Amino acid sequence: MVNSTSTQAVSNRVRIQDSFWDPFMELVRGTVIPYQWDALNDAIADAEPSYAIRNFRIAAGLEEGEFGGFVFQDSDLAKWLEAVGYSLAITADPHLEQLADDLIDVIGKAQHENGYINTYFTIKEPGQAWTNLYEAHELYCAGHMMEAAVAYYEATGKRKLLDIMCKFADYIETVFGHEPGQLRGYDGHQEIELALVKLSMATGEERYVKLAQYFIDERGAVPNFFVEECKQRDGISHWSKKKQPIPTTAQVAYNQAHKPVREQEVAIGHSVRAVYMYTAMADLARLTGDQELLVACRRLWDNTTKKQMYITGGIGSTHHGEAFTFDYELPNDTVYAETCASIGLIFFAQRMLQLEAKSDFADVMERALYNNVIGSMSQDGKHYFYVNPLEVWPKASELNPGRYHVKAERQKWFGCSCCPPNVARLLSSLNRYIYTSSSEKNTVYTHLFIGSKARFELAVGEVEFIQHSKLPWEGYVHIELTEAPQEKWTLALRIPAWSRGRAVLKINGTLTTYDTMNGYALIERQWAVGDIVEWEPALEAQLTSAHPQIRANAGKVAIERGPLVYCLEEVDNKAPLASVSLVTAEKLKAAYEAGLLGGAVSVEAEGLVDEDASWSDDTPYRPLGLQKAAERVKLKAVPYYLWGNRGVGEMTVWIRQGSV
Amino acid sequence: MVNSTSTQAVSNRVRIQDSFWDPFMELVRGTVIPYQWDALNDAIADAEPSYAIRNFRIAAGLEEGEFGGFVFQDSDLAKWLEAVGYSLAITADPHLEQLADDLIDVIGKAQHENGYINTYFTIKEPGQAWTNLYEAHELYCAGHMMEAAVAYYEATGKRKLLDIMCKFADYIETVFGHEPGQLRGYDGHQEIELALVKLSMATGEERYVKLAQYFIDERGAVPNFFVEECKQRDGISHWSKKKQPIPTTAQVAYNQAHKPVREQEVAIGHSVRAVYMYTAMADLARLTGDQELLVACRRLWDNTTKKQMYITGGIGSTHHGEAFTFDYELPNDTVYAETCASIGLIFFAQRMLQLEAKSDFADVMERALYNNVIGSMSQDGKHYFYVNPLEVWPKASELNPGRYHVKAERQKWFGCSCCPPNVARLLSSLNRYIYTSSSEKNTVYTHLFIGSKARFELAVGEVEFIQHSKLPWEGYVHIELTEAPQEKWTLALRIPAWSRGRAVLKINGTLTTYDTMNGYALIERQWAVGDIVEWEPALEAQLTSAHPQIRANAGKVAIERGPLVYCLEEVDNKAPLASVSLVTAEKLKAAYEAGLLGGAVSVEAEGLVDEDASWSDDTPYRPLGLQKAAERVKLKAVPYYLWGNRGVGEMTVWIRQGSV
Repeated sequence: MVNSTSTQAVSNRVRIQDSFWDPFMELVRGTVIPYQWDALNDAIADAEPSYAIRNFRIAAGLEEGEFGGFVFQDSDLAKWLEAVGYSLAITADPHLEQLADDLIDVIGKAQHENGYINTYFTIKEPGQAWTNLYEAHELYCAGHMMEAAVAYYEATGKRKLLDIMCKFADYIETVFGHEPGQLRGYDGHQEIELALVKLSMATGEERYVKLAQYFIDERGAVPNFFVEECKQRDGISHWSKKKQPIPTTAQVAYNQAHKPVREQEVAIGHSVRAVYMYTAMADLARLTGDQELLVACRRLWDNTTKKQMYITGGIGSTHHGEAFTFDYELPNDTVYAETCASIGLIFFAQRMLQLEAKSDFADVMERALYNNVIGSMSQDGKHYFYVNPLEVWPKASELNPGRYHVKAERQKWFGCSCCPPNVARLLSSLNRYIYTSSSEKNTVYTHLFIGSKARFELAVGEVEFIQHSKLPWEGYVHIELTEAPQEKWTLALRIPAWSRGRAVLKINGTLTTYDTMNGYALIERQWAVGDIVEWEPALEAQLTSAHPQIRANAGKVAIERGPLVYCLEEVDNKAPLASVSLVTAEKLKAAYEAGLLGGAVSVEAEGLVDEDASWSDDTPYRPLGLQKAAERVKLKAVPYYLWGNRGVGEMTVWIRQGSV
Repeated sequence: MVNSTSTQAVSNRVRIQDSFWDPFMELVRGTVIPYQWDALNDAIADAEPSYAIRNFRIAAGLEEGEFGGFVFQDSDLAKWLEAVGYSLAITADPHLEQLADDLIDVIGKAQHENGYINTYFTIKEPGQAWTNLYEAHELYCAGHMMEAAVAYYEATGKRKLLDIMCKFADYIETVFGHEPGQLRGYDGHQEIELALVKLSMATGEERYVKLAQYFIDERGAVPNFFVEECKQRDGISHWSKKKQPIPTTAQVAYNQAHKPVREQEVAIGHSVRAVYMYTAMADLARLTGDQELLVACRRLWDNTTKKQMYITGGIGSTHHGEAFTFDYELPNDTVYAETCASIGLIFFAQRMLQLEAKSDFADVMERALYNNVIGSMSQDGKHYFYVNPLEVWPKASELNPGRYHVKAERQKWFGCSCCPPNVARLLSSLNRYIYTSSSEKNTVYTHLFIGSKARFELAVGEVEFIQHSKLPWEGYVHIELTEAPQEKWTLALRIPAWSRGRAVLKINGTLTTYDTMNGYALIERQWAVGDIVEWEPALEAQLTSAHPQIRANAGKVAIERGPLVYCLEEVDNKAPLASVSLVTAEKLKAAYEAGLLGGAVSVEAEGLVDEDASWSDDTPYRPLGLQKAAERVKLKAVPYYLWGNRGVGEMTVWIRQGSV
């Protein structure tokens, strides 16, 4: 087994202390987790009920009733429990821990004798387990509960849920495989693969990695399992309850099962399924040293992030199947860019960083985190976007059915509510994404500039330091060594893509040159306690253009400032926003506004607004010559992640280029 | 009854002789009608079967079998028969007439004793007639067959189909109305209203107008008929065969039945239903002098054409329900702009012209005809667009489900094939759209500049002239009087909007000034046989911009030349077309190209193409400053109606404005 870099056991050794991120963590702990607890208990007025906890109580024999919600409803509860685990690791909360313990008792009671857990198949279709892997999400739900079990165990040391899920995993191991009588299947929605890796790490049981490997290796084998399984079911669909045409092998590309994963060339199909799978592939490539898998990971990473990713780190261009479409098709208005998909992309990036420290992975991770992901949640922590558009015309969202999925306002909860608990679990485990370390290379890599106290074990000994960061508002990072071994080791600092390579390093107040490798400044020296590293990546508002093949952004620019993508909102600018253009030859002005949504840097740009006074309402088209000169206007852009917190209005990330 | 202007009996007194239009008429006669006959007989290889004729043969007891196709399949056959009528009026064709006569015999045999005709309810749901007006298109199919009957009768003098349909109309009159035992219903898809007006004109039976008026007046009355009818059916839907939620009154806006027609403020719902209804409303306003109806027509005309119409004359912004969305929402790529809807808009325009000769109506009629409608048919007459996009990226049409409806190539035939026969019947009756006349005002209005021999009866006597036209390629019209009464009368010539009021008149070679009214040049004089009128509306390539509220076209221009909208095609320009911009400060050059798709004027513009050589495939986004200067390029635009006849490629009507 190779293990290039690692975050193992880092979780409880990195503690975030950061003026930008602390409020998010606190929001998750103080508001999101309790709010989502209410949601899971169907106690939010006017929101769609979840049924998730009720389902478990019914399956446990504690309550009578019908199954409610989607076939994958168990996973919402699992993701919540996982978030609770991470949160408890940060902040003790006996009341919350008691809620979780009680819930775990219920989960235990809902477990079958053989280890099986799934409330849908327990309540609604008993006896039908494993008959519809294609659609019914059993392994998906199992995977989420395994992740919860690991997180809860790591936070509290309590093994109950871990044991429950090991029992389930052991049972799954008997059901699937190449032996006679075993199903040569795999899940319709990948998730268990990455979860089994976590379970293996937490328990030391290598066979869970082997089971994950089985699922990954078997996927896309001939004859196609999903096609054969659908034939077995006579085409009866879980969703329509009717006979449907048997899918072709090409059609199961939706589930990334059209060919073996190592042969997959491009990101295709349902985007969350895809990135969850890529994450597990990267895990396995790292743990097994499988070079072919590594090559596939790199190829799929490149396609996903360089040809099918929005500037906000969103992926998935169409709401039909919540899916990728094809290279460079990134419409801003009919976009999907599901919150969960960007979270999965962050998982994938994290695993790639564990494989090899290349700043590209961290650049994408940061992009998705600071834009798509935190933008999905309202400032009150109680409203969420499932779809994260780059352009919104509220009336079109309301009246054009092709845009119904693009909400102009964050929603309270969703019937299919995968995203809110996913945000909660990511934010409460954010400490795991900041660093990786390589013991053999005696190197600590700093990927994200998030204030934190961090401790690592290198071959040369224990290292501890405190990072202070003024990101995302200023390009200033301050690291103070609090523990250092006698021997040399390397502190690697990411040179963010947005700095365009302009990052200044000072050590103990002295400007210092540095070597770079794969986008990191490598500072190898014999560090001493009290050493101060100052790291100043150039952070300024700048204009970004998109690849000419991305037709949706032709002739347009976006404003970025450090990790943040900016947008224009109607409330600050003249509507329709399509009428304004940005004078690219003139300077952008950034200013911190304490009163702007809790404090944020806004960016002012020189703009033009198309003259409209000469138009009558009754003239849809007229000779261009009648158009009077555009007027100068100041454009005000705000961070994308803050959009939609000041009432309903138009929003756009990409702005027409104008010239005077 | 008022009758401001009239096309009555004009059909057989205007004969088109025009170098641009004759090939279309000939295509319809020689290719489209025979091809569609084969299609209706399911004899086109690789095309979706129609079943339309087989259904009639089964209903007539001449064949055994199941009903095939949609519930409204009869209407395809009716529209074909109507086209045959118009075509026979132009060119005798004994073989075709025999086919039609034989078909009419079959239709007669499919008629029930009481007059009822509908193959779906005869074959598939006997006894269920009139139980699902909301969805089942019975009156719609009846209306189309009435139109066919009138056209066939006017062309051939044969009354058989006319009598059949009068019998059906008489029966319908007994079924619907306010009397006890009658249904207070109306059709889910408007069509019979305008057809009954035609039937009345052809037969002199005023009660058919009254029946049309009943349908129009009753529509949207409280309690809502469709809502109540759905309750009666317990919500069982024709389409899903399952119980569906009972629609709300607001939801039947889809069928324009949410409120009385006179109260409807904006074009809403299914666009073909809407314009067919508006057409009948205009007919009735003219025939009854109903001012309230006239006001509603004007209001709906204005909303449709000034706020919800594409520059190509297309209407309907979404394929979801083939419907209008709302003011100024006119996306170019996810567009619907159904061929039938533009044809319906032409009907509406024609009826508005019969009410009042205002050039605005004719401008829109011409726009829809020369662009959306003729662009829907391939040059071989055998392939059709149902959806007429203003921007096409073929790969997105193939791989983004939100654009599947936008075909990059014309299709052979459609399962729901309303559009191809609609094109055939419009083109073969085009002589009815060129002129209107007012006997009392002693005026002949020339709305379209299509070469033709035309004869009118005015109060002062018979008028006959020959129009020669060089449109759409040149702005030159030549009219020679061949018969004129002794007294004065007025020749009114439309001053096309595209001439921007610059139209030169010569009479017998002498430049002549003229009075204008409502967009027409009025030339009142004592005309003599041999008088020559030359009419030269300025026709030059020009750039057009869109209202600032039409967000999709912000910062873009379209090229128009006379009645023709132009577009860029990939075959002539650099792809992606989004990369090019048009230098608006420089002149457009138009040139006739004999070799271009049978001869057409193309337009060359100075353009810029975004530099792309400095982009790597692996860079989706980068600082704007890295972009090198755009390069000069010649753009070549071709008439929109000709797009897609030279292989599959990108196309766009709206082009980014560029400046050097």
